[in-house]
Amino acid sequence: MATHAVVLAGGSGTRFWPASRRAQPKQLLSLSADPRSLLAQTLARVESLCPIERSWVVTGTHLATAIRAELPRLSESALLLEPEAKNTALSVGWAAAAIQAKDPEALVMVLPSDQHVADAPAYLGTLQRALESAAQGEVTTVGITPTRAETGYGYIETGGELGPSLLRGVRFTEKPNQALAEEYVRGGRHYWNSGMFFFRAVDMLQQIERHLPKLHAALPAMLKAGSDTAALRAIFAGLDSVSIDYGVMEKLPSFRVVAGDFGWSDLGSWQVAWELGKQDERENVAVGHAVFVDASGNLVYDLRRKPEQRTVALVGVQGVCVIVTDDAVLVIPRERAQEVRAVVDELSKAGKKALL
Amino acid sequence: MATHAVVLAGGSGTRFWPASRRAQPKQLLSLSADPRSLLAQTLARVESLCPIERSWVVTGTHLATAIRAELPRLSESALLLEPEAKNTALSVGWAAAAIQAKDPEALVMVLPSDQHVADAPAYLGTLQRALESAAQGEVTTVGITPTRAETGYGYIETGGELGPSLLRGVRFTEKPNQALAEEYVRGGRHYWNSGMFFFRAVDMLQQIERHLPKLHAALPAMLKAGSDTAALRAIFAGLDSVSIDYGVMEKLPSFRVVAGDFGWSDLGSWQVAWELGKQDERENVAVGHAVFVDASGNLVYDLRRKPEQRTVALVGVQGVCVIVTDDAVLVIPRERAQEVRAVVDELSKAGKKALL
Repeated sequence: MATHAVVLAGGSGTRFWPASRRAQPKQLLSLSADPRSLLAQTLARVESLCPIERSWVVTGTHLATAIRAELPRLSESALLLEPEAKNTALSVGWAAAAIQAKDPEALVMVLPSDQHVADAPAYLGTLQRALESAAQGEVTTVGITPTRAETGYGYIETGGELGPSLLRGVRFTEKPNQALAEEYVRGGRHYWNSGMFFFRAVDMLQQIERHLPKLHAALPAMLKAGSDTAALRAIFAGLDSVSIDYGVMEKLPSFRVVAGDFGWSDLGSWQVAWELGKQDERENVAVGHAVFVDASGNLVYDLRRKPEQRTVALVGVQGVCVIVTDDAVLVIPRERAQEVRAVVDELSKAGKKALL
Repeated sequence: MATHAVVLAGGSGTRFWPASRRAQPKQLLSLSADPRSLLAQTLARVESLCPIERSWVVTGTHLATAIRAELPRLSESALLLEPEAKNTALSVGWAAAAIQAKDPEALVMVLPSDQHVADAPAYLGTLQRALESAAQGEVTTVGITPTRAETGYGYIETGGELGPSLLRGVRFTEKPNQALAEEYVRGGRHYWNSGMFFFRAVDMLQQIERHLPKLHAALPAMLKAGSDTAALRAIFAGLDSVSIDYGVMEKLPSFRVVAGDFGWSDLGSWQVAWELGKQDERENVAVGHAVFVDASGNLVYDLRRKPEQRTVALVGVQGVCVIVTDDAVLVIPRERAQEVRAVVDELSKAGKKALL
């Protein structure tokens, strides 16, 4: 039973503007000292469990060129290009069908393409346990042991141990408010939803047939369409936009959760890039050359070409993110980093398409 | 008696880094909505009093190319290139000697190259009065009626009216402390030193002969050297560095002051660029395209090439200057704009010569 990795790389977030753009979303950025993109890091991290030859990437057609450049060893047939984003159930279903057509015994792990992992060995251990669980015919996910009452994540409720770090899944919950998040953390039964899923291809397709019959019925046509964008566009147009969590996971008679603790982050904003960066003695983080004069707790992230010829100088400012690209500069307090979207909205209104 | 203008354009300030550089000091910047450099604005402003054919520029050899590009109509022999900055007495003496050699009857006005003038007609009226005074054989300066107890300027003390807005000069004073500046403004006898001087060439040369004899003795050799940098370097090496204020003006038996009030500023820091800029309803000033989200009282000054393709976005910040060039970004609170020099010092220490 060979393991296949499916990396979901269709995201088009605006939270890392101006570094992230429509044509270069978060998964194509590094956001850390590692020069490789988060997507490339994701595949490299699991290579001991699953070689590139059994890795698949689902993304949008507009990112095809950038992703081919980023992953030159990925085979063309393993790049599933969506003409339109229709949420994760479709992406997972398509990948599962494509994999099963090649390898009817396949064991599949679905991984987001834009997460941070601090402790790669612990991560791999968790994935290994999740794959073992999935190999027994149980759809399995990874729940992250919460370290704080985070309101920015969805949670998974669990009910009872089935083995070491192996829990019975009860339900998926939306992002909670602060009080509920605190209750979740106190209670000890809730885990952060990592967005990772583990299953035998046959099991997932069976569940999709039961819970999303319209999608299931479309899968043969999608496989036939292959890379024919026009044909895919016609098929996608008739399908619903639904997440794998809501469309399948929540409706399963049972699922399993492997509890993981490996310094996980879904990299939600520039604030997180600062947290994960290498801080100097005044808690400044700089990617690129920076000069700090009486300045502390700042993030400088300079993506301009010819970085050795550039500088960013901060005098007398505290707790600010300064993000620089060849065409844009963003200055925003770390604590308001969630509000970057407002800038993107303004630029969109102003018709500055090239800056989006 | 023809009027000649001498513009002192040797300044190499660091107060407008990263816009100002060694090779592009303040006088070669615009710092306002007017696209012309402050130097070009200065000559254009006085053209009705003195055409370009009788205009002279004293500057450093390292700025020759930039200034020729900026002032294509300036004749080559009117560009006096100093191999080394040796303060203003030398610059003024050299120009006076060069002018007198061409025009023994010349009336001269010496103007700094990097000042802001809001009310050009009032400015020209003041200069006209100063020239009339100088034509009578009296060295004359312009004193700016102070509008606040500014500690960043030198002052001229006056004693008694000689005519409308024409005052007897008493002495030049250094930059005062706050208490003294307040006393000056209350007293009504002190004016800001504008750094402008008006005289017949023959009068100034006579005063230099008396008070700076070593400089006077070197003038024939300087005229002979012309644009021979090596010869000039040898002469300059033997001369003292002394200002025209201290070396000549303070030692005159008498001098005159024309009081002026024309929205004058010597543009001391980015704070002033903000004050003089076009403020929107939230007191933001932008040169270049900017997006402000919940941001007020900021200055954005974007000098990058292809400005129509660039943007600078500020979210949730107040009272900050964000200065952007193709190779540098500066973020500094307006109220600390005087501290830009610290960045230049840091870059110098770090060996980042191209950024200076």
